[in-house]
Amino acid sequence: MPNPSDVQLVVVGSVGLDTVETPAARRADVLGGSVSYACAAASFFTRVGMVGVVGSDFPDQGLAVYERFGIDLNGLQRAAGKTFRWSGVYERDMNARRTLSTELNVFAAFQPDLPAAYRATPYLFLANISPELQLHVLGQAERPRFTAADTMDLWIETARDSLMALIAKVNMLTLNDTEARQLTGESSLVRAARTVLGWGPDFVVIKKGEHGSMLFSNSGLSVLPAFPLEAVSDPTGAGDTFAGGFMGFLAREGRIDEAGVRRAMAFGSVVASFCVERFSLERMQELTEPEIRQRFEQFRRMVSF
Amino acid sequence: MPNPSDVQLVVVGSVGLDTVETPAARRADVLGGSVSYACAAASFFTRVGMVGVVGSDFPDQGLAVYERFGIDLNGLQRAAGKTFRWSGVYERDMNARRTLSTELNVFAAFQPDLPAAYRATPYLFLANISPELQLHVLGQAERPRFTAADTMDLWIETARDSLMALIAKVNMLTLNDTEARQLTGESSLVRAARTVLGWGPDFVVIKKGEHGSMLFSNSGLSVLPAFPLEAVSDPTGAGDTFAGGFMGFLAREGRIDEAGVRRAMAFGSVVASFCVERFSLERMQELTEPEIRQRFEQFRRMVSF
Repeated sequence: MPNPSDVQLVVVGSVGLDTVETPAARRADVLGGSVSYACAAASFFTRVGMVGVVGSDFPDQGLAVYERFGIDLNGLQRAAGKTFRWSGVYERDMNARRTLSTELNVFAAFQPDLPAAYRATPYLFLANISPELQLHVLGQAERPRFTAADTMDLWIETARDSLMALIAKVNMLTLNDTEARQLTGESSLVRAARTVLGWGPDFVVIKKGEHGSMLFSNSGLSVLPAFPLEAVSDPTGAGDTFAGGFMGFLAREGRIDEAGVRRAMAFGSVVASFCVERFSLERMQELTEPEIRQRFEQFRRMVSF
Repeated sequence: MPNPSDVQLVVVGSVGLDTVETPAARRADVLGGSVSYACAAASFFTRVGMVGVVGSDFPDQGLAVYERFGIDLNGLQRAAGKTFRWSGVYERDMNARRTLSTELNVFAAFQPDLPAAYRATPYLFLANISPELQLHVLGQAERPRFTAADTMDLWIETARDSLMALIAKVNMLTLNDTEARQLTGESSLVRAARTVLGWGPDFVVIKKGEHGSMLFSNSGLSVLPAFPLEAVSDPTGAGDTFAGGFMGFLAREGRIDEAGVRRAMAFGSVVASFCVERFSLERMQELTEPEIRQRFEQFRRMVSF
């Protein structure tokens, strides 16, 4: 049995069963949710623990998948009821998606608590859940070295005060371009990120989907295109995969400076580029470290001049 | 008097007087057109000659601006009538623009001819005019070392055969992401570019506006984000500025291989990033070589990991 105190990174968020339709195909009730993607991605770099909740209908197969990734499941709660479900459609433009339905189910009453063995975790990623819950979990981490939080439009609209309190307390905020504009009222992403930096975090990452990502800190600015792909099957989870790969790499290397964080961002991009090649966690289930390393080097060549 | 036989790069395209409205401001009858932007950008690197047409209403001030850039004007035709005019509006999303009016005027009968002294030009950029005219000019170049052509949706729809004939004859095609998809029927830009490479060019550049650019060849693939700016005043001419800077740098360095072309692309991006900071050629009129060099180094740091 793995020892939960080995865990270097804890990820808190949603576990879901997704039904996804893209121009490529349609899949029903596949493994999804932010922690599924983020933990799978992080597992290539470090020992990661998952904090989330599943219902009594959650398939054993799903748990077996997490275990094959080597994810520690001591923080995964099982509740009576149905697992969180989401369904959505991607049109030809894979950057735009339409949600068909969201059933919170057991996720509605999710009270994330860090198992005792997780409270000393050096790295903590608060994936997209309500900022109140993110703050609750953050309060349980005893002496984290590096904390990151993700958010979404819903919380910017409905829980702004808690979100602002959270932003002031984490080392890094990740959000997409639309959310960055919405949160700050700035149409320029550079200005938006500077505004957020002014609220406290050391780093702000703006995710732009197929257009890459930007990393801002008080000492610099880094921009990365996305790794160009011939075909994208399913963009679901790309942002969480990016963040999970990022945090996993950071946890492994332990180098939290501009250069270390940039490399983490590149590794996050690379793992995300694999993720979207197939549905759900399918591609990551077959992914190997040499493949990641090879694409990382290829990526570095692509952006060098 | 400069000697037209010094010219290393010839650019053929439109000269216009633009009326542009952006969220920042509105300007009427300012210098525009593809050759204005491309020649101004190229002038930072090499001796460039402009082939275009202006009407009798074209202001002497405009010619004086070109001359201050050191642009050779021996190929600039003066015709009786009004200069080409375009007006358009950019909404909040600077990547999308709406054309309000286009008056071809003297541009309707434009018959581009290379002055005798230009026929031996080693570098030739055929900016966006009809592919028939681009082919006509290409036929006049005696032994070009490197030729590039730009195009637009109109020609893809209405002059496909000529465009295909042109593509087969140039070293490089530049087009934007929408045009690349439209031209090839491929939604993946990687596949679209590979398709175009199969038609003959050595290089294909796909321009993605604020999201950067991609360079494809049979030996590699390079991706660049755009240089991130706090504010964009007017994106008009960014693509032509990019191409002009690219070709100017290539003409100066004379190194037409993967590495040389990548550096040219980065310099093109840098000059374009200055261009959009203000309207028309305003920013380039004040731009200095040290500023370009400094931003180039800054850009290189931003994308390195």
